[in-house]
Amino acid sequence: MTGSVQDRQAEAVKRYDVFHTDCPARAAVDHVTSRWGVWVLISLRSNSLRFYELRDSIQGISEKMLAQTLRALVQDGVVWREVEPTTPPQVTYGLTEFGQDVGEPLTELFDRITRRLAPRSAE
Amino acid sequence: MTGSVQDRQAEAVKRYDVFHTDCPARAAVDHVTSRWGVWVLISLRSNSLRFYELRDSIQGISEKMLAQTLRALVQDGVVWREVEPTTPPQVTYGLTEFGQDVGEPLTELFDRITRRLAPRSAE
Repeated sequence: MTGSVQDRQAEAVKRYDVFHTDCPARAAVDHVTSRWGVWVLISLRSNSLRFYELRDSIQGISEKMLAQTLRALVQDGVVWREVEPTTPPQVTYGLTEFGQDVGEPLTELFDRITRRLAPRSAE
Repeated sequence: MTGSVQDRQAEAVKRYDVFHTDCPARAAVDHVTSRWGVWVLISLRSNSLRFYELRDSIQGISEKMLAQTLRALVQDGVVWREVEPTTPPQVTYGLTEFGQDVGEPLTELFDRITRRLAPRSAE
């Protein structure tokens, strides 16, 4: 009986590791498509931003959630973080090459939904 | 200085209403890219599935979360739901045309992350 579950798991691993909770790519997919990850990635697509600029560009995000989202994306290698040693220190975030690569289909997804559901803004 | 952030915001609003919480497209983006929405859409890309088949294909999802995710996606017009009047009734879910349209960049996103972070499965 355990055999069949294991077979199905092995099969799934062959197709897509990411359907399984122990896959590193699944965590990255979850972070990129998280409640706020999507908006952070889309905001950073055109240029890098300071923490407060990011906060101001995404309506409804709290500083706590933004910090948490950025931490996960930096860990995944999707976003880079640069601290300037000024007083107070200024922290800038931007997309890594991997982040740009991932941001492209995310922007496409976003555009397709926008075209369908918010036609005014897609003109 | 604040002008530049606000100008950029105004620009973003012109381009994308969806950065704002009152935009219908933002809800759809949030549902499609929700914790479980991503996996439901990717699971349904190749063929329609029964509720229990969906549950079994996505490791870690509870029936409650699956039902909630499906309800939101049906409301957005991304997923269709068909009930066969058998005893017990059998419920099947599949992607609408809009769902297929949205599923395409989502699969691309998923493939790019997989290729980078789970290279064995992308061979």
